[in-house]
Amino acid sequence: MIGPLNHVGVAVPDIRKAIAFYRDVLGATDITEPQDLPPQGVTYAFVTLPSGQVELIEPYGENSPILKFLERNPKGGQHHVCFEVDDIHIAKTTMEARGMRVLNEPRIGAHGTLVVFLHPGDSGGVLIELMEAPDVEH
Amino acid sequence: MIGPLNHVGVAVPDIRKAIAFYRDVLGATDITEPQDLPPQGVTYAFVTLPSGQVELIEPYGENSPILKFLERNPKGGQHHVCFEVDDIHIAKTTMEARGMRVLNEPRIGAHGTLVVFLHPGDSGGVLIELMEAPDVEH
Repeated sequence: MIGPLNHVGVAVPDIRKAIAFYRDVLGATDITEPQDLPPQGVTYAFVTLPSGQVELIEPYGENSPILKFLERNPKGGQHHVCFEVDDIHIAKTTMEARGMRVLNEPRIGAHGTLVVFLHPGDSGGVLIELMEAPDVEH
Repeated sequence: MIGPLNHVGVAVPDIRKAIAFYRDVLGATDITEPQDLPPQGVTYAFVTLPSGQVELIEPYGENSPILKFLERNPKGGQHHVCFEVDDIHIAKTTMEARGMRVLNEPRIGAHGTLVVFLHPGDSGGVLIELMEAPDVEH
């Protein structure tokens, strides 16, 4: 059912400083320019590694869902984990049939494919994002 | 400098229940049996995905470093992120030269290779594990 670990989402108070940390301290070389994603209330950048990515997310707008997270964790921290699925609608139906609360209707995520989030209260305190794999055709 | 995203570490209060969740709800098929790692104070199991892994960690012993984490997050949650490096000693020296606090001398981790942890206060609230890649020879 769940496929590759696509990325780890890391909430940050200042995305420019976070990019500098991943580049200058950790030595990552492939980092995208920050992009705004107003529907999700985030500004994001991807740190692409030889496999896997870190998605840096800074609050965008007054209703950003990560503002509350940063109130509790002012320095930032791990916010979500994203797994790829073949088909987001089948994944949503399957998760609901197995008793999971799915937090949203499928919507376009930072990778340009459909995503849903699962309620962390149903998944061991981990906010799980399911993301339709970018290269799957229907 | 940092290589592949090897795994996300997820602290869990009950590793058997967590394994059942990843297997029966999320549909993961490759999950190891729980193993004790007394030096690190954890019992762990790996959920292996087509790429990347989730490391489930339950406290082992009274001095387990994740007991405090679970007091703050009783349901569990994302605990650390692990990146591979080619050489753990060079990585440690480099991180220290760049002002990072390295929390331990290199020691054997769950994958049988040397690991160090970086202080989350220096890395945006994220506990980062650096792990010598399993297939690198010296």
